[in-house]
Amino acid sequence: MEPTAGDLTDPLINHADGQLFLHEAFKIIVEEVLCKGTDVKEKVCEWREPEELARLLDLELREKGEPQENLLQRVRDVAKYSIKTSHPRFFNQQFAGVDYHSLAGRFLSEALNTNLFTYEVAPVFVLMEAEVLRGLRALVGWTEGDGLFCPGGSTSNMYAMNLARYRLYPEVKSQGLWSLPQLTVFTSPESHYSVKKGAAFMGFGMDNVILVKVDDGGRMIPEDLDEKIELSKSQGAVPFLVSCTSGTTVQGAFDPLDRIANVCDKHKLWLHVDAAWGGSVLFSKKHSHLMKGVHRANSVAWNPHKMLVAGLQCSVLLLKDTTDLLKKCHCANATYLFQQDKFYDVNLDIGDKTVQCSRKVDCLKLWLMWKAVGSAGLEQRVDKAFLHARYVVDQMKKRDGFQLLRDPEFVNVCFWFIPPSLRGKEKNPDYQNRLAKVAPVIKERMMKQGTMMVGYQPLGDRVNFFRITILSPLVSHKDMDFFLDEIERLGNDL
Amino acid sequence: MEPTAGDLTDPLINHADGQLFLHEAFKIIVEEVLCKGTDVKEKVCEWREPEELARLLDLELREKGEPQENLLQRVRDVAKYSIKTSHPRFFNQQFAGVDYHSLAGRFLSEALNTNLFTYEVAPVFVLMEAEVLRGLRALVGWTEGDGLFCPGGSTSNMYAMNLARYRLYPEVKSQGLWSLPQLTVFTSPESHYSVKKGAAFMGFGMDNVILVKVDDGGRMIPEDLDEKIELSKSQGAVPFLVSCTSGTTVQGAFDPLDRIANVCDKHKLWLHVDAAWGGSVLFSKKHSHLMKGVHRANSVAWNPHKMLVAGLQCSVLLLKDTTDLLKKCHCANATYLFQQDKFYDVNLDIGDKTVQCSRKVDCLKLWLMWKAVGSAGLEQRVDKAFLHARYVVDQMKKRDGFQLLRDPEFVNVCFWFIPPSLRGKEKNPDYQNRLAKVAPVIKERMMKQGTMMVGYQPLGDRVNFFRITILSPLVSHKDMDFFLDEIERLGNDL
Ligand SMILES: Cc1ncc(COP(=O)(O)O)c(C=O)c1O
Ligand SMILES: Cc1ncc(COP(=O)(O)O)c(C=O)c1O
Repeated sequence: MEPTAGDLTDPLINHADGQLFLHEAFKIIVEEVLCKGTDVKEKVCEWREPEELARLLDLELREKGEPQENLLQRVRDVAKYSIKTSHPRFFNQQFAGVDYHSLAGRFLSEALNTNLFTYEVAPVFVLMEAEVLRGLRALVGWTEGDGLFCPGGSTSNMYAMNLARYRLYPEVKSQGLWSLPQLTVFTSPESHYSVKKGAAFMGFGMDNVILVKVDDGGRMIPEDLDEKIELSKSQGAVPFLVSCTSGTTVQGAFDPLDRIANVCDKHKLWLHVDAAWGGSVLFSKKHSHLMKGVHRANSVAWNPHKMLVAGLQCSVLLLKDTTDLLKKCHCANATYLFQQDKFYDVNLDIGDKTVQCSRKVDCLKLWLMWKAVGSAGLEQRVDKAFLHARYVVDQMKKRDGFQLLRDPEFVNVCFWFIPPSLRGKEKNPDYQNRLAKVAPVIKERMMKQGTMMVGYQPLGDRVNFFRITILSPLVSHKDMDFFLDEIERLGNDL
Repeated sequence: MEPTAGDLTDPLINHADGQLFLHEAFKIIVEEVLCKGTDVKEKVCEWREPEELARLLDLELREKGEPQENLLQRVRDVAKYSIKTSHPRFFNQQFAGVDYHSLAGRFLSEALNTNLFTYEVAPVFVLMEAEVLRGLRALVGWTEGDGLFCPGGSTSNMYAMNLARYRLYPEVKSQGLWSLPQLTVFTSPESHYSVKKGAAFMGFGMDNVILVKVDDGGRMIPEDLDEKIELSKSQGAVPFLVSCTSGTTVQGAFDPLDRIANVCDKHKLWLHVDAAWGGSVLFSKKHSHLMKGVHRANSVAWNPHKMLVAGLQCSVLLLKDTTDLLKKCHCANATYLFQQDKFYDVNLDIGDKTVQCSRKVDCLKLWLMWKAVGSAGLEQRVDKAFLHARYVVDQMKKRDGFQLLRDPEFVNVCFWFIPPSLRGKEKNPDYQNRLAKVAPVIKERMMKQGTMMVGYQPLGDRVNFFRITILSPLVSHKDMDFFLDEIERLGNDL
């Protein structure tokens, strides 16, 4: 069917039909994702082999469109075969659970479909983002500063590196790294891989990320940091940034910020704190001590989409800087977007602070949720997560077969499940090899049965162990008991 | 109110209350954003000065939460004071309009709240993303290849630069730019600013982005490209990438890809095509000739969130490469996420292809919309946009006071409005100065009255002119007539 000019002079979209479809889709979302998807009597995961799933979904894109009924069935299918990350038995990732105020904010952001580059297209969100950043900075202990919502903590970590090198060598922006001495970054081997990825992407090279030793809890050792910095200098490089972690991805360790800040002061290095995962402890009077000294950092990355359940993505970079470094470092002064002869204060056109052009509105969901439950409500989420982590640890200690890597500092509980056949066999030469195979089998079984989800990994010389991250506001002690029972059920015959 | 341990053992969130809130919020979204927000009898923009708006919104984040009624009022306020980018009189940006199938897909993605890094947490979306990329690559003319959804075209452009340098010098990943000769990138002065921003971010430096001359239509001149490459080589640099543009941001120009590809072949350079804006012409049998030769590129950036109205953000990088360059260049092999001893094909764990870790699901909205209207329906959108651009140009030619920069190739119509007081005064010494002040005043008036939105900018030695980008599937000829009448109404006394 060749469209004729006549067809096209009028609107192509019918609002009544469209809204009807949206309404029906909304009902399916509520029923499949929010009701069934959070019901412990339902599965977390409806496992299908990739070939089968592709067939079931009929993914192919064709020349002709489809009737509404088909499309609604597709909405149902996508919901059915997707992982229920809000389910109380989803422990696989550092996100889980659902917050309805945040979700409403997300729907509203999507419907408003705007970009955070100028006040003229995003008046509400320019002001709102500033306020949310102010609120988060206050928790870090800063009364002024700057910041940005980024598409993920990895990007925030990259921004920190870019700002730090620009502060030291502003000519890098025009001339590139060739005009600079070799620069080195310091982080721990347990830091997030984005530090290395970022270093490669930004032209530093992964070899210039120097790994500082950790203690047996996975925390960076400040003395080793000092030594490694000296060593790097003696080799002719210029150390310029330390990226420490508040809440490492696997073990949930908190690097000792105060003591690291001393080392940074001594060597005049930029202190970046990757608190993508752990930052939310700052809401808790009880647990914020884990980040003592954070106010001494130059920059902090923090993902409210993780522990605060703000929804993917919600990720901020916070800066102590008050010299407009963010803008100076990133601006290109495009006149088609950032005209200087506007009728309002062009400082509200924040788009030139970023290396993105279009940038999603990620502040509304956090703002609305924060308004709904207050700082006190967010504090509760954090405290609840710690409480449940503590509970599961205590229960593990009471049961046979659960061996903790260590007593957790945070809400990551890392443990081996030792099946009965391996108990007391620690001295056998094939013990580690056999233990390494346990977690993958349990994982496969839980996925195929769909009862719950939790991740495993090796770390250094430690063979595959489970890491459960406990953060969903939806969980109860019953879910923790279920978790332990289920690991036993799935692994007892191994 | 200090939370007690007792409170926290049970779920913190009540589904019934939450779903009720979501339901009410949904109704407000439909009413305020989708009905009123697309109604030509309503305003595009409810302008408020920043101080007043901040007061109206009461943005401050507090210790205590708020009752549901307040929160629903907040949803209403956010909707009210936000720009109605779906309104048929919003011409301010390269996005506009609304597609209900896409919007349903967006709501579903938000509710499912997962990340595109592994098959285990995103089985449906791993397969779906691959299929959508396949469909888009087919339009480029590639039967194989690779690709990725990125958080914006700027990021896609950066990825292309990273891949091109890695292909040439894989050691850059570990050793950084210091181990490489000085590299140069070639683009036109009318290309998007993200090429420069990206070059700065990735350590190349903006000075190593060499600007190739354009013809009077804003298209890169291949002969000048060839000369500039030779010149750069003679200065000891290594040219490695040409970034040409299909649909420049301001003028909508298409660089001559075939002839540029010849130059790239000759010098063995990576050809990147930034088709963020113009890529959608590939859906149209009538207009795809504008990108003739695109199959010869190494990479293409394309934003379906622009012309196809897929919703922000929806942005892809497409690659011809079949050697797994994307993964080799970006991987860090994190074992906590990308275990190799999984029970399914770990090639489906695509997360290591990116420098992001969490990555939003941006494929579903495009997939569902494509399923709904078919390639034929997307072709109609493109053809409709051209038709309306042509219509508005024809009308401008019939009216006094509208002076086109040139006859547009694409759907960007760039023009000056010459108020009666300036007509025939082109020779006056202050003509350009006075003309430069016209667009900002008209813009201020239209914003404050809220009747429509369109952007203006200077370009080279051309003073402020309006750029209208016509792409919304919701517009009719009446909206175009309104646009012209309104410019006259707002500017006739200037
Ligand atoms: C410590 C840490 N930093 C950074 C990140 C990366 O954040 P994102 O996934 O938002 O890029 C993560 C996420 O896993 C993390 O755990
Ligand atoms: C030609 C061109 N390239 C790249 C971009 C950047 O895309 P994004 O805003 O998604 O980063 C734009 C958007 O304005 C553009 O017009």
